Amino acid sequence: MFDGSGSAAQQNDAASYHRRMRNTAELRDEILAAARAEFAQYGLAGARIDRIAKEANASKERLYAHFGDKESLFNQVVLADAGEMFGAIELLPDDVAGFVGQIFDMVRERPDHIRMVDWARLERVRLNLPDGDSVHFVEKMRGALREAQARGLVDERWDPADLLTMLFGLGLSWVQSPDPSADTTNKKVIARRRADAVEAARRIIAPAD
Amino acid sequence: MFDGSGSAAQQNDAASYHRRMRNTAELRDEILAAARAEFAQYGLAGARIDRIAKEANASKERLYAHFGDKESLFNQVVLADAGEMFGAIELLPDDVAGFVGQIFDMVRERPDHIRMVDWARLERVRLNLPDGDSVHFVEKMRGALREAQARGLVDERWDPADLLTMLFGLGLSWVQSPDPSADTTNKKVIARRRADAVEAARRIIAPAD
Repeated sequence: MFDGSGSAAQQNDAASYHRRMRNTAELRDEILAAARAEFAQYGLAGARIDRIAKEANASKERLYAHFGDKESLFNQVVLADAGEMFGAIELLPDDVAGFVGQIFDMVRERPDHIRMVDWARLERVRLNLPDGDSVHFVEKMRGALREAQARGLVDERWDPADLLTMLFGLGLSWVQSPDPSADTTNKKVIARRRADAVEAARRIIAPAD
Repeated sequence: MFDGSGSAAQQNDAASYHRRMRNTAELRDEILAAARAEFAQYGLAGARIDRIAKEANASKERLYAHFGDKESLFNQVVLADAGEMFGAIELLPDDVAGFVGQIFDMVRERPDHIRMVDWARLERVRLNLPDGDSVHFVEKMRGALREAQARGLVDERWDPADLLTMLFGLGLSWVQSPDPSADTTNKKVIARRRADAVEAARRIIAPAD
């Protein structure tokens, strides 16, 4: 039907169908962007659907039709954010310490994303992850750590799951600190902290002699 | 007047005054306890003053009279919690690695307290700390790290403020992780994680040969 052999009317239908689909996709994207800004700022309880709808130039009715209730919308934003965050970092067996630097950079570039994940944890939102998705990410990272251990690059002392959690803890130290001085725009300070986190990871993983 | 030399009426006034004061203090404690439970569960935006008042058997009017608005009450709870948390840990220059174990234990014993601090950070609540209090705690910890460095127990490479932030990051790794498996009641797993965090800190601070 769509191979060019159809009638003009059929082709017109197809073009109109495509246009409608694109607009729906665009609307979804705009609602998601508005929702991300609102949720990152106010959390699930504090967010207001009418502000999101207004910001996205959509009616509340269309928003509900596309995303369900507020918690469902929150869930979809945090899932998209988690997917994007995991997609932006890669644990390589021969540069495990550098992975902490990747985490450090990633949350600096996406402050709203890590806020979403923190909100989700505090609001005890059950993340209904797409089947196997988070397991996939986590298992891939743990697998890289096991490979690094097998190659003698990471001390065998560590349980891969615990080591992974500590590497994230190190990379997120400043973002998750309540100390106001942890938040800075001073490039020299930021560079020093990044180097510190990577050096700390290097010392942790170094195989004992 | 209160030295026993006053009239019976004056003594009666004093006793009544004391009783009223004690009851007021008790009421304050009950409201604070109810507020802690409510805020730790729902955060600032999600908490409801009428639930807190009901739980504390107080009228909303008395609650407002004692604590001001919801944000002011939140502020007082998180300040009390932060004070209690800092009071429960002590950074000793000759056991810097053990300090991470203290942090690990402290948040396990007070899950609501660390949730309050996390909520405050996400809700961007400006903590109006009593004059010098937080500076006192933080400066004391940094001072202990400087002393440990002067005594050759901690590598001079580290900036004390950055090292302190990373030690907290390590100790809080599991509590602040979004991974559901980070939350466990398995005593063996908990003991292993605690030992891991302390060993990681030991490796970080060890002076380079």
